[in-house]
Amino acid sequence: MHSNLRPNLSINSDRLWSTIDRSAEIGVGKAGGLRRVALSEDDKVMRDQFVEWCESAGCNVTVDAAGNIFARRVGRENELPPVVVGSHLDTQAAGGRFDGILGVLSGLEILRTLADHNITTRRSIEVVNWTNEEGARFAPPMAASCVFAGLQSIDWLHDLHDDDGIRFGDELARIGYLGDATVGGRELDSYFELHIEQDSLMEAAGKSVGIVTGGYYSHALTCVFHGECAHTGPTEMKLRKNAMIGASYFLAAVNDIGWQYEPIGRTSASRMQIWPNKFGILPEYTEVTVDMRHKERAITDEMVNKTRVALAEAAKKANVETEITAEWTFGDEIFDADCAQLVRDAAVARGVSQMDITSIAGHDAYYISRIAPTALVFSPCINGITHNEAEDVPREATNQAVNVFFDAVVARADR
Amino acid sequence: MHSNLRPNLSINSDRLWSTIDRSAEIGVGKAGGLRRVALSEDDKVMRDQFVEWCESAGCNVTVDAAGNIFARRVGRENELPPVVVGSHLDTQAAGGRFDGILGVLSGLEILRTLADHNITTRRSIEVVNWTNEEGARFAPPMAASCVFAGLQSIDWLHDLHDDDGIRFGDELARIGYLGDATVGGRELDSYFELHIEQDSLMEAAGKSVGIVTGGYYSHALTCVFHGECAHTGPTEMKLRKNAMIGASYFLAAVNDIGWQYEPIGRTSASRMQIWPNKFGILPEYTEVTVDMRHKERAITDEMVNKTRVALAEAAKKANVETEITAEWTFGDEIFDADCAQLVRDAAVARGVSQMDITSIAGHDAYYISRIAPTALVFSPCINGITHNEAEDVPREATNQAVNVFFDAVVARADR
Repeated sequence: MHSNLRPNLSINSDRLWSTIDRSAEIGVGKAGGLRRVALSEDDKVMRDQFVEWCESAGCNVTVDAAGNIFARRVGRENELPPVVVGSHLDTQAAGGRFDGILGVLSGLEILRTLADHNITTRRSIEVVNWTNEEGARFAPPMAASCVFAGLQSIDWLHDLHDDDGIRFGDELARIGYLGDATVGGRELDSYFELHIEQDSLMEAAGKSVGIVTGGYYSHALTCVFHGECAHTGPTEMKLRKNAMIGASYFLAAVNDIGWQYEPIGRTSASRMQIWPNKFGILPEYTEVTVDMRHKERAITDEMVNKTRVALAEAAKKANVETEITAEWTFGDEIFDADCAQLVRDAAVARGVSQMDITSIAGHDAYYISRIAPTALVFSPCINGITHNEAEDVPREATNQAVNVFFDAVVARADR
Repeated sequence: MHSNLRPNLSINSDRLWSTIDRSAEIGVGKAGGLRRVALSEDDKVMRDQFVEWCESAGCNVTVDAAGNIFARRVGRENELPPVVVGSHLDTQAAGGRFDGILGVLSGLEILRTLADHNITTRRSIEVVNWTNEEGARFAPPMAASCVFAGLQSIDWLHDLHDDDGIRFGDELARIGYLGDATVGGRELDSYFELHIEQDSLMEAAGKSVGIVTGGYYSHALTCVFHGECAHTGPTEMKLRKNAMIGASYFLAAVNDIGWQYEPIGRTSASRMQIWPNKFGILPEYTEVTVDMRHKERAITDEMVNKTRVALAEAAKKANVETEITAEWTFGDEIFDADCAQLVRDAAVARGVSQMDITSIAGHDAYYISRIAPTALVFSPCINGITHNEAEDVPREATNQAVNVFFDAVVARADR
C-alpha cells in the first residue's frame, strides 16, 4: 500500500459538475450533445474558458506550438519533473459532453481542491488539454500528443488539412493557440488520464474505477485507389478503372475479415474521400482508412495480412492501382505498473469498487506512455454510448472515480 | 428522297470553329478542356455570349423558368410550331470542348448561314440551350429538358441542391437566367440534336454521320443506407450499423452484375454521399446512385432485379436499413422515323458517309422525344474520349455532319 494517500480529502463534486455543465454549453450539438471539433470557434471559446478557470485557480498557463495547454500548480520542488494530468476538450462532430472533457476538468478539480485546502504537493502538477484528440476535423486522431511524444514533427501537424483545405497551423494561429512553447522535449514525472470507458463492461460489473492494463492492438492503413475518369454509360466494363468501386470491393472484404475474428477482433472503415464524386463520371481517386483491432497483437497482425491480400484482390477486380500512403499502430504500449498499483491502492483505501480493464479505443495516454510512466483510468459510462450526443455518465460512481484519481495523482506528486 | 433538301448551301465552317474556340476560352479546365458546370459563373458568361451571338444573328431570345434559352429565327409562317435545334452548353467538372457545345453552336451556325443567304424558312427555327444537361453540380442530369417534357415540375427543379447546399432556383436567379417563359407546354414541330458520339464506333467505321435509332435502355436507382453512428473501435462487429459498409457491399455486387452482362451490359456507380464521413465514427447515412444499361430492355430489367436483390443482401450483411428514394429510366423512347430518314436522305444527297447507331449515354433528345418528333444525330469523336478534357473531334468529318444536319433541319422547317 502506498503510504501517502489522502483518502480523507475529497473533491468538490458540485463544482465539478457545474464546470462540466458550463463546458456543455459551448458548442452545443443538434441533439443536445457537443459539436466542438478541434480548432473551431467553439474550441477557441472552450479553451479561453479553461484558461480563465486555470488562472483563477492560481496556475501558470503555457501553450505549446501544437496548441496543447498546460496549467501548472507549482510544487514545493518546482525543479522536479511534473505530474501531468489531462485529456482533451475537443469533441466529435456529434459527440458527447464527457468524452475527454471529464478527464481535463477532473484535472482542474484536483488543482482547485488542493487550492481549497492550501496544499502544495512536492512535485508540480500540470493539467493538460491535448489538441485534436478526436481527429474529427483534422485526421489522424491523437495528433498533438503524438507530436509531444516525438513520434511526428510539429511541421507534420501544422501541415494537416481539413476537408475544406484549411491548414492546421493556420487555423491554430487564427484561434490564438499557436503557442511558443516547444512541443515535448521535457521530462515528465508521470502522466495520468481519466477517461469514460466507452463501453459498458464496468457498468455491467458494477465497478466505479477501471484500471487500464493494456489496449487492443490497433493497426491502421490509409489506402489510395488510382483509377481513371471516364463517362459511366459508354465505357465498357473491361475498360473501366473506377477507383470508388475498387474501394468498395476492398471495404466489403475488410468488413468480412472483421467478422472472422468477432467478437474480440474488429475491422473498421468510416470515411471515404472520392474524386470527382459526380454522377456520370467514373472516379479516378478514392482514399480510405481502415483499421484492424484485437487484444492480441499476433492476431491483429494476421488480420492486417489478410487486409493486404484483400487490397491487392480489390485492385485487380476493379482494374485500378493502389498504394498504402500511411500506416500507424497503437495499443502495445505498456502502462506503468507502479502508477496502476497506486490507483488500485487508492480505490482500496477509499473502499471504491475497481477492476482491471482493457481499452479498445485510442487515447492520448497511449502516446504519452512512450515517454513517461502512465496510468489510464476509466470511469463508468451509461449503456456504453459514446461519441454520440446521448452520451451520459452515472454521477455517483463518477465522483468515486474522480476522488480515487485525485488521491493517486496527489500521492504521486508527493512522492 | 425528300424534295426540299438544299445540298448546294453549306455552313461557314471557319466561323463555326472560331465560335467553338471562343466557347473553349470560357471556363477553361486544369488540363485545357472545360470546367463549366451548370449555373456557375462561367456558365453565366457563356450564356451571355450565346445570347449576344443569337441576337446579332437577328433572333428573338427568350428564357424560361428553367433557364433554358431559346433563340428564334422567325419563319414565314410564324404561327406554326417551330423546329427546335440544340443541346447544352454546360460541361462536366473536367469536361471537353465539344460535348453538347457542338450541338448548340451548330444550331447557331444554321441560323447564321440562313441569315447569310437571306433565307426565311416556312416554319420558325429555334436554337435551344438546355440547362444542366450534365448534372455535374445538380443531379440528376438532363434536368431542365425533363421538366420541359413535363416529366417533373419546375418546383422539383428549383429545389435541387448542390453539394454545398445551394438551391438550383436561387443560383439560376443569381446568374440572371431565371426567365419568365413557361417551361414547355407548347407544341414543337420537331426537335433535332447533333451530339458527338462519345464512343469510337463511327471513327472505326469511317463514317461522318450517325443516325441514332435508339438508345441503351437505362434504369437508375438512388439508394439510401440508414445505419447508426458509433465509435469505430469499441463497437463489436455484431452491434455495428455502418451505412458506408452497406453501400460498399452493394456497389461491389452491382459491379459484379455488370460483369455478368458485358460487353453490352454495364452497371455504374460514380458518387457516394456519406455522413458524417469522419475517421473514427461509423457512418449513419450513405447514398449512392447506380444505373444498369443494356441494348435490350428485358435484359436491363433482369439486371435491375438482380440489383434489388443485391440491395437487400447488402442491407442484411451490414445490418442497416435501405430505401430506394429515386428511380428513373431512359432509352426506350422512340426517335421519329421520318426525321431519321430525312437525315439519311440529306447524307445521301451530299454523298456523306453515314450509319445507324445506338446511343449509350443519355441526352436531352431522349426526354424531348416524348413530346415531339425527334432526331438525334451523331458526329464522330476521336478515340471515343469524352467527358474528359482531352476530348477532340475530327474537323473535316464534323463539317460534313454539320452540313447534313443543316440540310435536314432546313428541309424540315420548309416542310
